[in-house]
Amino acid sequence: MKPVAGLMIALVVVSSSRAADPLPSWNDTAPKKAIVAFVERVTTEGSPDLVPPAERIAVFDNDGNLWAEQPMYFQAMFIFDRIQQLAPQHPQWQTQEPFASVLKGDVKAALAGGEPALLEMAMATHAGVTTEEFERIASDWITTFRHPQTGKLLTEMVYQPMLELLDFLQANGFKTFIVSGGGIEFMRPWSERVYGIPPEQVIGSSIKTRFEMRDGKPVIVRLPELNFIDDKAGKPAAIQHHIGRRPLFASGNSDGDLQMMQWTSAGAGPRFCLYLHHTDAEREWAYDRQSHIGRLDKGLDEAATNGWTVVDMKNDWARVFPVSQ
Amino acid sequence: MKPVAGLMIALVVVSSSRAADPLPSWNDTAPKKAIVAFVERVTTEGSPDLVPPAERIAVFDNDGNLWAEQPMYFQAMFIFDRIQQLAPQHPQWQTQEPFASVLKGDVKAALAGGEPALLEMAMATHAGVTTEEFERIASDWITTFRHPQTGKLLTEMVYQPMLELLDFLQANGFKTFIVSGGGIEFMRPWSERVYGIPPEQVIGSSIKTRFEMRDGKPVIVRLPELNFIDDKAGKPAAIQHHIGRRPLFASGNSDGDLQMMQWTSAGAGPRFCLYLHHTDAEREWAYDRQSHIGRLDKGLDEAATNGWTVVDMKNDWARVFPVSQ
Repeated sequence: MKPVAGLMIALVVVSSSRAADPLPSWNDTAPKKAIVAFVERVTTEGSPDLVPPAERIAVFDNDGNLWAEQPMYFQAMFIFDRIQQLAPQHPQWQTQEPFASVLKGDVKAALAGGEPALLEMAMATHAGVTTEEFERIASDWITTFRHPQTGKLLTEMVYQPMLELLDFLQANGFKTFIVSGGGIEFMRPWSERVYGIPPEQVIGSSIKTRFEMRDGKPVIVRLPELNFIDDKAGKPAAIQHHIGRRPLFASGNSDGDLQMMQWTSAGAGPRFCLYLHHTDAEREWAYDRQSHIGRLDKGLDEAATNGWTVVDMKNDWARVFPVSQ
Repeated sequence: MKPVAGLMIALVVVSSSRAADPLPSWNDTAPKKAIVAFVERVTTEGSPDLVPPAERIAVFDNDGNLWAEQPMYFQAMFIFDRIQQLAPQHPQWQTQEPFASVLKGDVKAALAGGEPALLEMAMATHAGVTTEEFERIASDWITTFRHPQTGKLLTEMVYQPMLELLDFLQANGFKTFIVSGGGIEFMRPWSERVYGIPPEQVIGSSIKTRFEMRDGKPVIVRLPELNFIDDKAGKPAAIQHHIGRRPLFASGNSDGDLQMMQWTSAGAGPRFCLYLHHTDAEREWAYDRQSHIGRLDKGLDEAATNGWTVVDMKNDWARVFPVSQ
């Protein structure tokens, strides 16, 4: 009967985050100042804009926002790797597209079919196992697979400034959620360890599942049938479905996050929308309006119109990844 | 920047729950002893069965478990009341079943179609508005509608012993969730006030929604299309979808909760399953194996087989409802 320990840790974090700079990897430019000012405004006792802790909901896109997404979504690497692993059980894949291209190592051809092709491959590689089996598979993969260009573990390609932002918000009573187009069960096995975000605060795309008894043991089986795509207009709908409250703070990096931003900013009282603009070809990647992944076009325009905060990665971040680059 | 206040309150609750009897409305019979022993076992530092706070997930069915469900699900009363309200805009309901029976006040005939009929009426009365409008409608209704037999507000027909159990678990670091066959957005407007359970910890049945812009303002519209029925085998699937972790503690009262119990008890380490048996015709209602609402038949058998705890309302509860009866 000792929940006290966890609470004490939370108290300590609050104290230390006040003493030291809570966002050391952010340069002292406009975005950092705007974030700190907003948090102060909604959390200071006596402030006319004080928001009760229960309503301090912060939502974060994942791909390209909490971790990198180039040269392709990291989950696509997982899908390709799974296809290689599962190929012996699916001889027809040797000639069947898009699987055949994956097995030949021709990523471009494999992705030529766009989202439908990726979805087909996701179904083929993410279903047919129980939730517990899938958790183990994703968990094992994420601790061993290395990014083909950087050689880093993918969990080393999370953004240090965003980790600090998550900590800063959590220390100030915010409940932080991931709201990603990526697979909900792909992220959950490592979201708590890497981001401090527990599985129940992870929202994502999903396939259908079915509860059944196998040899007298209950299991939840993953089915090759789409349940929900958590992207664009799906994001505010998913936020309402899972959280049931409008966010106070939203953070994303692409047009896929635009509706989430619109929904957030239209709430009563102060709201904060943060767009991450990938401008750093040297330390990370530079891409926006023309990119086939993480396109940021309409979002940039609406951010300017609505006064949302845009992070210029190159100028506003002192550091990008946690380990030295 | 003051989340400290909330944390201090949590600390105070922990202390006081230790000093006084945390479950005063429970008689000192087996169920209370089993609950207290279990919580001690999984929360005491140094216990071989200590469970980290993050994994202390407790799930509660709502109808017949946290509040009463007789002579019909309370949400059915809401549906009937909505039909009366909306009838002027739907002249065809005067002759169209099951609406015509509702308008005539013939509840039995209205419910003769079983679940499909109820579902049809739910769609007709719960959709076509935005999420914000529906929240206001449900919120207004729950604060004014009175139970036809007891004359109480429905939120006065919650079970005092269960409120104490929720508090006790929360004070011991458990995260408490509602997992109900009822509508997720019907419960959220009052779950925090009545149960201390925030909207993001409410899981239930749902209809589909769509995000759209109306006059430049983003809204989420409720559609007359079923999304998910959170009952029976749907419950463990929904728990996995929303929480992503197997519960440590499950509480229900009907066969609709059986799969949730099976899923919970099959987890590694100690787990606790609690069935509420309605045995008190005097203070509440007495029903089980033959009831058309909240049938508890297979559940009673499996509880006996598996050693799950069964609460005999009449003998194990010193008090049923919060206000004097």
